[in-house]
Amino acid sequence: MRAIEVREFHTPASGIFFRAARRLLSEKTPFQKLEIYETASHGRVLMLDGLVQTTERDEFFYHEMLVHPAMMSHPRPRDILIIGGGDGGTLREVLRHPVRSAVLVEIDARVIEACREYFPQLSASFADKRAEIIVADGSRFVRETDRRFDGILVDSSDPVGPSAFLHRKAFYAGLKRCLRSNGIIAAQAGAPVFHLRHLRRKRAILKSLFNFVFYYLGPVPTYPGGLWCYAFLSDRIHPMKRLHRKTPKGLRYYNWDVHQAAFALPEFLKDQTLV
Amino acid sequence: MRAIEVREFHTPASGIFFRAARRLLSEKTPFQKLEIYETASHGRVLMLDGLVQTTERDEFFYHEMLVHPAMMSHPRPRDILIIGGGDGGTLREVLRHPVRSAVLVEIDARVIEACREYFPQLSASFADKRAEIIVADGSRFVRETDRRFDGILVDSSDPVGPSAFLHRKAFYAGLKRCLRSNGIIAAQAGAPVFHLRHLRRKRAILKSLFNFVFYYLGPVPTYPGGLWCYAFLSDRIHPMKRLHRKTPKGLRYYNWDVHQAAFALPEFLKDQTLV
Repeated sequence: MRAIEVREFHTPASGIFFRAARRLLSEKTPFQKLEIYETASHGRVLMLDGLVQTTERDEFFYHEMLVHPAMMSHPRPRDILIIGGGDGGTLREVLRHPVRSAVLVEIDARVIEACREYFPQLSASFADKRAEIIVADGSRFVRETDRRFDGILVDSSDPVGPSAFLHRKAFYAGLKRCLRSNGIIAAQAGAPVFHLRHLRRKRAILKSLFNFVFYYLGPVPTYPGGLWCYAFLSDRIHPMKRLHRKTPKGLRYYNWDVHQAAFALPEFLKDQTLV
Repeated sequence: MRAIEVREFHTPASGIFFRAARRLLSEKTPFQKLEIYETASHGRVLMLDGLVQTTERDEFFYHEMLVHPAMMSHPRPRDILIIGGGDGGTLREVLRHPVRSAVLVEIDARVIEACREYFPQLSASFADKRAEIIVADGSRFVRETDRRFDGILVDSSDPVGPSAFLHRKAFYAGLKRCLRSNGIIAAQAGAPVFHLRHLRRKRAILKSLFNFVFYYLGPVPTYPGGLWCYAFLSDRIHPMKRLHRKTPKGLRYYNWDVHQAAFALPEFLKDQTLV
């Protein structure tokens, strides 16, 4: 059987490739192109509009670093909101903490259904009694809901396609609206190696809304540049004060050392002069 | 003009690609295959035996993190030895410090000559009065030299081809032989995402030779997995005590925050159970 060549372009003339043994799924949903491949190198790979979202091999880098810095910085995170995250990995990490409820708002029902079928390691979290799955537009949800949250995780795709709105000021104002006063938001923010201008613009927007705005970093081998940036946002809580409880068991990336280390920014991100 | 497709495989079925505008050089030296490409995405790219060694765009991640943690941890680094490093980038970073001498021992004269021609940003360091360039086998040099060094930087290629010996115990014993008693060695050690077993074996060897053995991490976007591991070795000096002088000007990655952060190891590297 001939392998299928799968590529993601990180610039117009460079990127990563996989030789997939099988294409498990390829369809056009109402929102985006959804593909799932079986690969020898990275296990199953989920792609949306041609961009790698999740691979079985390295999803833990991303999901642990999106979730645990915020969760471990909050003294008592009871009610959690996840925007996006239809693969279930972010929800799985949230549920490692003693939360009361976790609401996941994903715009594309097909992502949820496909991940239920092909990524059980991630989507098993959907069955947890504390989890509530809502198929809806996250930006509308945060404008309209009466619910309030201690923690919000923004697990969006990049600022193109159905997630474009999730990178704008009005969306973050909506998040703030339904965040409790001592709440914390963590959001995936992009690739410092390729999206530095975008990160700079976004930081200015975020600083107009929140007292504490910190970018932090973690590796994600299959994301552009291999290095990913996240934003930590809060009006009351500083991310480096102290841990409030023991780190959950079974983690493969996160610990308190890497929590602190993730907030150390290299010169090119401090100065925002490059790359 | 048709672009040239350049690939590096990180596993038998995955890797990175560049579409190069031009092949500037491709030859078989007595030691390895040497290629240099001009790319729109990463500037000039140096490959040895099919593996990316240096790109103009992201070489600073690697060279700064190989050199500055060791140099900044030493109270007075006067005489420095570089094993490998024929592109000149490691030497350039060493010479940012107030050193008296920097000896570079590279086995392949063609790498030096080609980088003089095609990577002037890196190889300009060869012209510095403090630098001495020796074309020789680094493992033999450290067995035989009478000179002694305060710092040694091992800027080898991976443990295949002409660098294979530079990953064995006898080589590190040779390094120790020509290291002053309060000296520090920093060595590139591999990709934690792909070479974890190799890193574990190597740590055991290093611990039999040095009092202080620390792995530390830094991103290198075009290296396998985007995350690179380095070893810090010394009998007397701990890497986290304090900085001894101001950080050199003009750096794009290194600062004292990332120095400390680099030594924070994620769970999968601590436990050595994965990936």
